[in-house]
Amino acid sequence: MPRPIPGASMLTFYYATNTCALASHIALEEAGADYETRWIDFGAAEQTKPDYLEINPKGRVPSLATERGVLTETPAILAYIAQSHPQAQLAPLGDPFAFAELQSFLNYLCATVHVAHAHRARGYRWADDPAAHEAMKKKVPQTVGACFDLIERKIFRGPWAMGGSYSIADPYLFTIARWMEVDSVDPGAFPRVLDHRDRMAERPAVQRALKAEGLA
Amino acid sequence: MPRPIPGASMLTFYYATNTCALASHIALEEAGADYETRWIDFGAAEQTKPDYLEINPKGRVPSLATERGVLTETPAILAYIAQSHPQAQLAPLGDPFAFAELQSFLNYLCATVHVAHAHRARGYRWADDPAAHEAMKKKVPQTVGACFDLIERKIFRGPWAMGGSYSIADPYLFTIARWMEVDSVDPGAFPRVLDHRDRMAERPAVQRALKAEGLA
Repeated sequence: MPRPIPGASMLTFYYATNTCALASHIALEEAGADYETRWIDFGAAEQTKPDYLEINPKGRVPSLATERGVLTETPAILAYIAQSHPQAQLAPLGDPFAFAELQSFLNYLCATVHVAHAHRARGYRWADDPAAHEAMKKKVPQTVGACFDLIERKIFRGPWAMGGSYSIADPYLFTIARWMEVDSVDPGAFPRVLDHRDRMAERPAVQRALKAEGLA
Repeated sequence: MPRPIPGASMLTFYYATNTCALASHIALEEAGADYETRWIDFGAAEQTKPDYLEINPKGRVPSLATERGVLTETPAILAYIAQSHPQAQLAPLGDPFAFAELQSFLNYLCATVHVAHAHRARGYRWADDPAAHEAMKKKVPQTVGACFDLIERKIFRGPWAMGGSYSIADPYLFTIARWMEVDSVDPGAFPRVLDHRDRMAERPAVQRALKAEGLA
């Protein structure tokens, strides 16, 4: 468990490039959080080494080390950033129903959309047979496309994901929507999601996070 | 969108038997919520019919219809039940860090453990090739077993999932731990999880939910 060093940032954010960690990275920027970053080198399988497993035994990113311990799982980290930085107004904190609607979208992105996407390159998680990995990869454009179709038609409200107020759902949608091309999903089929992605890319907080990850 | 009928319950809970909806069903009982239930007949594929898709376009359970609209996704519904019934003390509502730890566990159960389990019987979600479905099914004892190993060693605190206080994580863990046998995972390998499952089964709220679903 990392312990705070006197004078150091309150939060340490562990991320890898081109992962869902970007969502929390953007949220930290939007919140004006006091944090420092640690890049985890997936190319060197650093997430599977003892030093990192001590921080996050799941061997995944993101992780957010706080004074009280380490948090994992994107929806939990995003809600924590919003709740611990209320002045940033990144979630409807005083309204259990609106908060639940927001959480429902975060959860859908995590447990359905991200999972569908993961079957393209990480089929080994769920089967050992290389032919099964190919079969999973083949279906990704359909499964991820169906997710974005539902988001476009039923979930996305506009101008932001949850409606008039920007929230932690926006950087998460932006992060996963950046994967459409690699998943062979045509972004042009989802004009509202695409317009959101374009507008997100113009936000200073998004540009800072992308730059910090070497993506802009 | 279902509208409340004067004199009817505040909440309508849509569930199917032997699904993750049991977690929310138990939480509603623990909270002493004013709700009524609607059983969705998966055998008749009722979740794919227009009437239900109007309630939940994802075609899944659970769904919780409220006066303000329908909520979906187990972690969001569980947090809503806790936040809208604060007297039941089902979550550390005033502590963003402890709430995030709880959410992290809910999210892990949803996006990793339930997803691993789903590859046993619902491989068609992620591949079209029957041989791939068999390959996925074959790996389930290993992947679900690895999840319960992590829960047993690193996540579960005892006596309840998050420590001294019973929370919405407990019915969710109980619900998914009931699937170990069907996933060919030996519950005896995870004595703390097994003991939790046994203690949960003795709670009156759990017994009421099981009975309502025809499981006890």
